[in-house]
Amino acid sequence: MTLEPDAIPPAERLHAQIEFVRELDKLKGILRQTELPGLRRRENSAEHSWHLAMMVLTLAEHANERIDSAHAVRLLLLHDVVEIDAGDAFIHDPVARAAAEALEEKAARRIFGLLPADQAADLRSLWDEFTARVTPEAKFAHALDRLIPILHNHATGGGSWVFHQVRKHDVIRRCAHMAEGSVALWEFARGVIDDADGRGYFAPA
Amino acid sequence: MTLEPDAIPPAERLHAQIEFVRELDKLKGILRQTELPGLRRRENSAEHSWHLAMMVLTLAEHANERIDSAHAVRLLLLHDVVEIDAGDAFIHDPVARAAAEALEEKAARRIFGLLPADQAADLRSLWDEFTARVTPEAKFAHALDRLIPILHNHATGGGSWVFHQVRKHDVIRRCAHMAEGSVALWEFARGVIDDADGRGYFAPA
Repeated sequence: MTLEPDAIPPAERLHAQIEFVRELDKLKGILRQTELPGLRRRENSAEHSWHLAMMVLTLAEHANERIDSAHAVRLLLLHDVVEIDAGDAFIHDPVARAAAEALEEKAARRIFGLLPADQAADLRSLWDEFTARVTPEAKFAHALDRLIPILHNHATGGGSWVFHQVRKHDVIRRCAHMAEGSVALWEFARGVIDDADGRGYFAPA
Repeated sequence: MTLEPDAIPPAERLHAQIEFVRELDKLKGILRQTELPGLRRRENSAEHSWHLAMMVLTLAEHANERIDSAHAVRLLLLHDVVEIDAGDAFIHDPVARAAAEALEEKAARRIFGLLPADQAADLRSLWDEFTARVTPEAKFAHALDRLIPILHNHATGGGSWVFHQVRKHDVIRRCAHMAEGSVALWEFARGVIDDADGRGYFAPA
């Protein structure tokens, strides 16, 4: 049997893929700031990624531009995989966010690098696309990623907004780019934020 | 503005969709029998569904037939949503499995029924397709759904096999349909099962 120059034998290829699959278990142990309604525990990044993918299936019609749903699903399935090494940086903590970028870059190299080279490049390019937030699918994916903690914090009496004493205008500033992906969902989110404000969930301006 | 005969106004449509999105949080509280390697806790069905979707992105080339990966991803994202009402029935418990079918049918009607009618029908038909295990995508999805607990139990010193005193031939009987979706992954799984047998993880035959 002749192999392509940079190909690896099929058994090694499968073993590399299984190694990556096993590595993914670790994302289930990465906790986000968000507390889950009804469960009295913080959300992990794996179940969060599932929820976002399901939101694409449900809410894709609200994207500003016509999007390829399957592509948006792929972006969201893997958008947090780098947190296996880099952890989850709270969006309202600018110092943590800046430090996270270098860690995430290194994590992407290591984790996607467990895969055969062709797949490593494919997944890495999807992650880059998500991060760059330029394509319609990436913009919509980011919109959903901002919408869900708003729903969660509203449903848990303020959640991480209360815990971290976040102000309303900080939430609006950090989430306004939702409108690049979906004006409809950003308007909906604004209504939820206003309602949360009425309930006193935000710190004084 | 003129609406289709069975259409609902846009705001109501979005609210129905958000209601469904909120309902999905409950899947994060449904525990499977599987213990997660390194985390000392049982896996929930939401993070499990994410892992399976990622496995499609990684392992689709091993399907017996050429599959539409995005379609297999959709099947796996929603295959366990009915467990919100029906719970997770352990595959090696035939009594629980039989009772689960009626519960899952009722759950599918209620949960997908939260969505606008067109989407409820779409998601319901995807769930039916997964359950029927006839299309190449459904067969491959089932193969992954059987593979992951084999990897998990092997990685946790026997896991739920030891806890429930499962015999090797029960695992082989319950998982052999993996070969309908992927002969390559079933052969790999057989190797893992043999190794687990050598380590004494199974109950006597």
